[in-house]
Amino acid sequence: MNIVNQTELTKNTAEGQNPEQLTIILFSGDLDKALAAFVIANGALAMDMKVTMFFAFWGLNVLRKEFAQPVHKDFLSRMFSWMMPRGANHLKLSSMNMFGIGTAMMKYVMRRKNIYSLQQLIETAIQNNVRLVACGMSMDVMGLKKEELLDRVEVGGVSTFLGDATLSKATLFI
Amino acid sequence: MNIVNQTELTKNTAEGQNPEQLTIILFSGDLDKALAAFVIANGALAMDMKVTMFFAFWGLNVLRKEFAQPVHKDFLSRMFSWMMPRGANHLKLSSMNMFGIGTAMMKYVMRRKNIYSLQQLIETAIQNNVRLVACGMSMDVMGLKKEELLDRVEVGGVSTFLGDATLSKATLFI
Amino acid sequence: MNIVNQTELTKNTAEGQNPEQLTIILFSGDLDKALAAFVIANGALAMDMKVTMFFAFWGLNVLRKEFAQPVHKDFLSRMFSWMMPRGANHLKLSSMNMFGIGTAMMKYVMRRKNIYSLQQLIETAIQNNVRLVACGMSMDVMGLKKEELLDRVEVGGVSTFLGDATLSKATLFI
Repeated sequence: MNIVNQTELTKNTAEGQNPEQLTIILFSGDLDKALAAFVIANGALAMDMKVTMFFAFWGLNVLRKEFAQPVHKDFLSRMFSWMMPRGANHLKLSSMNMFGIGTAMMKYVMRRKNIYSLQQLIETAIQNNVRLVACGMSMDVMGLKKEELLDRVEVGGVSTFLGDATLSKATLFI
Repeated sequence: MNIVNQTELTKNTAEGQNPEQLTIILFSGDLDKALAAFVIANGALAMDMKVTMFFAFWGLNVLRKEFAQPVHKDFLSRMFSWMMPRGANHLKLSSMNMFGIGTAMMKYVMRRKNIYSLQQLIETAIQNNVRLVACGMSMDVMGLKKEELLDRVEVGGVSTFLGDATLSKATLFI
Repeated sequence: MNIVNQTELTKNTAEGQNPEQLTIILFSGDLDKALAAFVIANGALAMDMKVTMFFAFWGLNVLRKEFAQPVHKDFLSRMFSWMMPRGANHLKLSSMNMFGIGTAMMKYVMRRKNIYSLQQLIETAIQNNVRLVACGMSMDVMGLKKEELLDRVEVGGVSTFLGDATLSKATLFI
């Protein structure tokens, strides 16, 4: 997971080659699936590909800031907010969570083997110019405001997603 | 989610451009994933794309008619039939279903925010000429008959799916 | 699911046509999703497509040999090994497992209807030259050694996956 070589990237683009494109839609809010999405995204960025990640439904939780933001919410939005995990640090495994023991074990093993955590993968992807798009309709349903998501995130719709997907060599629904 | 402009569509095709194609395989029978599949499909249809949706395994439940049909079934098929949700109206969320409370909350919020329900999304997609294909092998395993599925549905196999997938700009497994 | 006609395949390649390519990443360790992945893979192989299957996270369990192999493992790897299903024979359905009853019912119905079991689908895919790649990073996290996986499996990384995905007509994340 090296940081992409900027000189290489510029050269590549200057030579007029269109960089290959990858689109990922992260629908899941599970730790393991979010890890998979960002490992693939970072791999593609390291290969000088252009990467768009679109976050819908539970996937929005990955982008949430860790602490409550001063935004006005109605009652149901407040309940959703309170029930859903607040950001990369609070996600759980899709299997074998076992009241948190499996998730803690997995994080411990990753740390011991020097594998990037989800937060580190997100930061690396941002440094390497990933495009992060939050689905506006999902935000509306779940009562999430733009201020509650990481600063680098754009808000978009299905057409944003499809626009990038149709230009991509591969599109993954995770 | 506007209804696709038919004049535009005709013009586009008349000019000899092949419309771009999208293929979705809906494997999941969860309400949230079915919503995602149909929101994306309707978005693509509104952009004049050709859309094929292939329904396998639990995804078949989305296509079931709401009331029991007069078909002959053996014992196991009858049990599967009875245990699986009967159509778009009876699906549950993949997370936070909480014995139905989460699902009801989500439906309530969507209604209040004037977001199309799954039934409305399915009807709109059908009006806009989505291709709906049910996986014959899955129907066989689950003991579902064609009469039990929505009228517009074709029955097909893996080669139907792959035929459309290889022509598509993007193929999503949901 | 016929065994691909080898003469046809040779002819096709000899004529200089590049066979179309399909890439599947199997992330899930659920029986139903593994079945879907291998049914699609076998369909594509029967249509003379080139197929790469990449196994990450829980998907690695599909490739595990049924009996414990004499490899050295640390304590946590041993625990993961013990908690995760050992191979195609021990997977469960993602829904309606019902303490194993649903899974047993599904297997029974498939046998009675002469539908290939997961083991048979894996063998057929191998005979038809599927490329099976296990994700090295996931193996490391879960403490799985190459000796514990089916003999035909290669070990690879994200770049192996992306290399094949960018050449493929369709890439599915299952």
